[in-house]
Amino acid sequence: MTDNATAVNETPAGLTLEEKASLTSGADFWTTKAIERAGVPSIMMTDGPHGLRKQRGGNDHLGIADSVPATCFPPAAGLGSSFDPELARRVGEALGVESAIGDVAVLLGPGVNIKRSPLCGRNFEYFSEDPIVSGVMGAALVRGIQSTGAGASLKHFAANNQETDRMRVSSDVDPRPLREIYLRGFQRVVEDARPWTVMCAYNRINGVYASENPWLLTRVLREEWGFTGLVVSDWGAVADRVASLKAGLDLEMPSSGGRTDAQVVAAVRDGSLDEDTLDTAVARVLDLVRKAQARPAVAGPLDVEAHHALAREAAGRSIVLLKNDGVLPLARDTRVAVIGAFAARPRYQGAGSSLINPTRLDTAIDEIRALSAGEVTYTAGFTLDGTGDAAALRDEAVAAASSAEVAVVFLGLPAAEESEGYDRDHIDLPAAQLRLLDAVVAANPRTVVVLSNGGVVALPFRDRVPAIVEGWLLGQAGGGATADVLFGVVNPSGKLTETIPLRLADTPSYGNFPGESGHVRYGEGLLVGYRWYDARSIEVAYPFGHGLSYTTFRYGDASVSVRAGGDVAVTVPVTNTGQVTGREVVQVYTSLPGSAVQRAPRELKAFASVALEPGETAVAELVVRRADLAYWDVSADRWVVEGGEYVVEVAASSRDVRSAVTVAVTGDDVRLPLTMDSSIGELLAHPVAGPIVRQAMSGMADDMMGGTDAAGASMMAHDEGLRRMLDSFPIGRLTAFPGVPVSREQIEGLIAMANAQG
Amino acid sequence: MTDNATAVNETPAGLTLEEKASLTSGADFWTTKAIERAGVPSIMMTDGPHGLRKQRGGNDHLGIADSVPATCFPPAAGLGSSFDPELARRVGEALGVESAIGDVAVLLGPGVNIKRSPLCGRNFEYFSEDPIVSGVMGAALVRGIQSTGAGASLKHFAANNQETDRMRVSSDVDPRPLREIYLRGFQRVVEDARPWTVMCAYNRINGVYASENPWLLTRVLREEWGFTGLVVSDWGAVADRVASLKAGLDLEMPSSGGRTDAQVVAAVRDGSLDEDTLDTAVARVLDLVRKAQARPAVAGPLDVEAHHALAREAAGRSIVLLKNDGVLPLARDTRVAVIGAFAARPRYQGAGSSLINPTRLDTAIDEIRALSAGEVTYTAGFTLDGTGDAAALRDEAVAAASSAEVAVVFLGLPAAEESEGYDRDHIDLPAAQLRLLDAVVAANPRTVVVLSNGGVVALPFRDRVPAIVEGWLLGQAGGGATADVLFGVVNPSGKLTETIPLRLADTPSYGNFPGESGHVRYGEGLLVGYRWYDARSIEVAYPFGHGLSYTTFRYGDASVSVRAGGDVAVTVPVTNTGQVTGREVVQVYTSLPGSAVQRAPRELKAFASVALEPGETAVAELVVRRADLAYWDVSADRWVVEGGEYVVEVAASSRDVRSAVTVAVTGDDVRLPLTMDSSIGELLAHPVAGPIVRQAMSGMADDMMGGTDAAGASMMAHDEGLRRMLDSFPIGRLTAFPGVPVSREQIEGLIAMANAQG
Repeated sequence: MTDNATAVNETPAGLTLEEKASLTSGADFWTTKAIERAGVPSIMMTDGPHGLRKQRGGNDHLGIADSVPATCFPPAAGLGSSFDPELARRVGEALGVESAIGDVAVLLGPGVNIKRSPLCGRNFEYFSEDPIVSGVMGAALVRGIQSTGAGASLKHFAANNQETDRMRVSSDVDPRPLREIYLRGFQRVVEDARPWTVMCAYNRINGVYASENPWLLTRVLREEWGFTGLVVSDWGAVADRVASLKAGLDLEMPSSGGRTDAQVVAAVRDGSLDEDTLDTAVARVLDLVRKAQARPAVAGPLDVEAHHALAREAAGRSIVLLKNDGVLPLARDTRVAVIGAFAARPRYQGAGSSLINPTRLDTAIDEIRALSAGEVTYTAGFTLDGTGDAAALRDEAVAAASSAEVAVVFLGLPAAEESEGYDRDHIDLPAAQLRLLDAVVAANPRTVVVLSNGGVVALPFRDRVPAIVEGWLLGQAGGGATADVLFGVVNPSGKLTETIPLRLADTPSYGNFPGESGHVRYGEGLLVGYRWYDARSIEVAYPFGHGLSYTTFRYGDASVSVRAGGDVAVTVPVTNTGQVTGREVVQVYTSLPGSAVQRAPRELKAFASVALEPGETAVAELVVRRADLAYWDVSADRWVVEGGEYVVEVAASSRDVRSAVTVAVTGDDVRLPLTMDSSIGELLAHPVAGPIVRQAMSGMADDMMGGTDAAGASMMAHDEGLRRMLDSFPIGRLTAFPGVPVSREQIEGLIAMANAQG
Repeated sequence: MTDNATAVNETPAGLTLEEKASLTSGADFWTTKAIERAGVPSIMMTDGPHGLRKQRGGNDHLGIADSVPATCFPPAAGLGSSFDPELARRVGEALGVESAIGDVAVLLGPGVNIKRSPLCGRNFEYFSEDPIVSGVMGAALVRGIQSTGAGASLKHFAANNQETDRMRVSSDVDPRPLREIYLRGFQRVVEDARPWTVMCAYNRINGVYASENPWLLTRVLREEWGFTGLVVSDWGAVADRVASLKAGLDLEMPSSGGRTDAQVVAAVRDGSLDEDTLDTAVARVLDLVRKAQARPAVAGPLDVEAHHALAREAAGRSIVLLKNDGVLPLARDTRVAVIGAFAARPRYQGAGSSLINPTRLDTAIDEIRALSAGEVTYTAGFTLDGTGDAAALRDEAVAAASSAEVAVVFLGLPAAEESEGYDRDHIDLPAAQLRLLDAVVAANPRTVVVLSNGGVVALPFRDRVPAIVEGWLLGQAGGGATADVLFGVVNPSGKLTETIPLRLADTPSYGNFPGESGHVRYGEGLLVGYRWYDARSIEVAYPFGHGLSYTTFRYGDASVSVRAGGDVAVTVPVTNTGQVTGREVVQVYTSLPGSAVQRAPRELKAFASVALEPGETAVAELVVRRADLAYWDVSADRWVVEGGEYVVEVAASSRDVRSAVTVAVTGDDVRLPLTMDSSIGELLAHPVAGPIVRQAMSGMADDMMGGTDAAGASMMAHDEGLRRMLDSFPIGRLTAFPGVPVSREQIEGLIAMANAQG
């Protein structure tokens, strides 16, 4: 709503209709069209929220060819666990530098879709089941990328939460979950970080393709959120090019070979498409090209070592220590049996468009050996493709475990089990791996499990092993980071951005995922992730926000204050009560007991990290934005902050609340006018109409019963049940009942007066 | 679709426009308008699915005055538990006789809405969480009523599953649950029993008032199901009279005082309403009047004793023995401490429009004393309104329990807690009653709990008492029936038509009930009732279909056969292996492993009762209708029987399967044409297109990679992940990709050929 007008008014002078149409679709798989005679150059976009996937060689293919080496940072499933926007910003900055060296104008990321189901094949590319985590981390990554003069592409807009039938399925979502869960993260990134581009998703939303959705691409994105950049299609997301342009999609990718450009030209010529609409899109394309051109040239080569070091740091911060009875960290001289094929052949990124060709690749076994001062053995224990003699591999591993002090078993999901393009249908680790683990634990109970997985997996062994390290997918330096955590070189501080459930059947979308016949119903509504488990009091394996450290933290009493403007400032002293330096992610959840609308028992509103030396105390300062207290009011069709006494919980996880205080929040002044459809209860609650109706009703009982039926009159006047029944009666409907001694005209008069005065 | 034409074509000759309009709304609260000069008499309707609520005195009031005494049979929550349509038919016949004596033309019932949540205040008026139970029992009741020449009114059509905001709320339901769960019972009653009238519900369905919904009232009800009767509004359900007439609503009730009749006249005059539409409604009203007039006069007075005896029999069959470790039945000479105010002041029906003024009222304490040959004490234990000295009442009860052999404690919901017009917000018994029970059990562990409740309640004490008798609401003879069951005069045979959950938070609609801002999302979709608990493997207190007997039954091996026409006949021998005569309700559930669409783990399809002497064996014969195997296919917009190997489970409850067999069912031949939006997977599965596409794709990989990129080509050809990704790609979208060596024209040709041949 601010500089939108500027961009739109820069009419692309001197271009023919055909040239203008051609600018709003790609030249090939990765680039926009150049118009040399008008001095418009082509710019390049590449895949990769966690690394640059710049295709090598010709780019007129399906886009699956090999790519130029780039640093593979931890995918969002890992990086999100750091809960650290500053770290995300630094990773973004490094991605921007690599983009500059590769002459890439726009990096296609971050993805901030909500992890609605653990089954979504692309969850590894997304941050969280919570919109605030997704939005804060996504905004930080965008800031980092764009600080270098490269552009980001916020994706996949919106409600793209599964891969099954992803190019046709309609995500059928009600207004509140759509706004409060699925759009809230996008809104935060757009408003806070102003990405150059937004990528519309493949799917439909409530029946309308995201690529053809004027409500989504224009009303919400531009008019409400003030987005002034360019909307690009996901690759192949355009079904009807002219409808897309009208809806607010500026650039179709990849090339359609001129077919859809001709449709645009024809539509302008026959009057079915306003040329101004095309001009607006062209202006946004030219604006993007100008931004890209403005970047100062960056000379290569890439500082591979420096970026690898950042990748290792980020990976170390991405690891979540789920459980530890003290077996970790390992002493340097521990005799360790490293078991599991992932230790030698790491699973460090997910399959699909984000697949990076890494500059280097650490393995855990090499890095453990590098840090160890003791004996380290390695046995594969199983094969990644399930071939081979499972029993022999297991026996070998058991023998190694038996003669070691500690067994470290690397388990995980084979690459083929999670990918862009399809979803999982279970959350189990391969049976051979679970059998291996059982055998190893039987041989040596001091067994540490290290996990490699993009989406959550069930952990049926969690009560039988002393330590579990959740490594997600950690990028190319994950091997080193894992070794760092195992030996305590890095004290783990990651926390879960996603609940680990006990069973798939406990998950919120179970039975509503992935839908069928082109529709998926978001039937769990607002109760996504921890909101569901908390609302239904369902036991989980590890709750949202959980993560251990090698030290311990004590929280003092929280205090809150309302700032001018309405943001709520929360402070809490945190003390490192253990023996080693550590970092704690402090979380703030809110709730509003007695709210007039449905609410989850608690909702994350802010988080912050404190790094503390042993014995040190620091005060964590967090700000809950007033806007984040708002719910989407369906009747008023706007955000509304409900007034009341909010509970503010300061917590180490969603199920480990350390301090709770309340704060009085003034509500927004929103009152809808009364109508003939208003209920008697609503009239009674109205400051003007209420007293009048109450007085009328007290006299009404006798009138209606004609004085002949004492029981009925008494029922009318005094019966609590009848009162409750009448409460929901629309006033206009009641006046139609025979014998009701109030006319429609009288009620209409009352309503008009109440609306005028109220 | 049969005699519809007849009714419609009998043009109401000789009536003025004003007279015709006037005939399509009520004269007052309970009667239609007479037109004396045309010889059209007025007919009367009254509330009451389980008894006649004929208002006494003037009927120009709000309809809450006292009513003429009538037999109060068990409400549907009780009667349904009999799982016995023949019993329901006999009750219906009795209701019809009482209607005839009272000159009532139409009895406003039965209600066959689904118990979506235990919180619905009106659940006591409904049969089940399952549509087959609702439909079979509802059809039987209609048959009984109408066998006497009275009319039934099937209600509340449709998706009226809560009382909160009931006159405005939109039940937002997806097509499959709407068809398969919420409409299926209505469909069965309409098709099997042809009720004279159907009553449209107050609520909206997917945004459109039931009373203004042409899809519901015309397409589904008349065109699909062949309904030829009259649609009457629920009292006050009409928001827009003209829109209602157009949609298929024939009669507005109650009177609008002429206001809406004038709207109809005006609409015909100004051309916005076709007079034929009005004529059709008038013809249906006149047809109803003719049917009512055709009934032979029935002389009173009512045989109060005979109907009371039937009420007692029905009540005995409605009781569900949830648990019994052997303490029941009581010997006649047992020293019994009867405890609980409900024993003396029975809760036997629900509040609201169905409230009957009973001809008699048994109390449990009197009837227990009548059957007992031992000492029977009675103490109230608590008060129904929560007043009084709870500790003193409890102490008195404990003293009585201590000196008795068995304590029988009557617990239940106070009348104010469940009613038409509002919903419950919890499922707990009053705390004072639970405290009383704890004290009694501590004093005498041989404690039998007898429950009186319209909707299910949580049973936190179920592991601590030896026997639980679920008495629901049993009508005016419930006291006698309860005594019959306690002493074994009647061997209980009722089974649960509704799951008893452990906690409200486990229920399917939790978080989606009762909605807000005028909408309630049926987010659990198909997984209503036991379908939910089974799909999510959630432990319950007592499962759907559960109910014990004083004898035991052994099931033999089931056998199945497919009849001509496709119905599946199921037979199973059942043997009474105990010492007393008993009746067993045999249930048949089906499932289809590997179905192409979502299915609950098991769905009830048929049930039957067998009455057996000790040692006797009988073969239960059940028929699963082919139509009941169908699912609603959203893409084809019709019912489809999927072919395959169905599992047929013969069971004593939904979680007590006694015998399982499979049966091969031939599917309906439904194939949708291929389009450019068809996915590659759908093309590959097509008998004509599949082989061609497969061959093209095998050559495509090399072409697309230009032979230069071996890795990519190999990926294309062999990678399982890529294959899965491409599977869901719409073919029309793929051809637009740069480098894809197939043109849109080629694909269009292939599709045309496939559709022509397929």
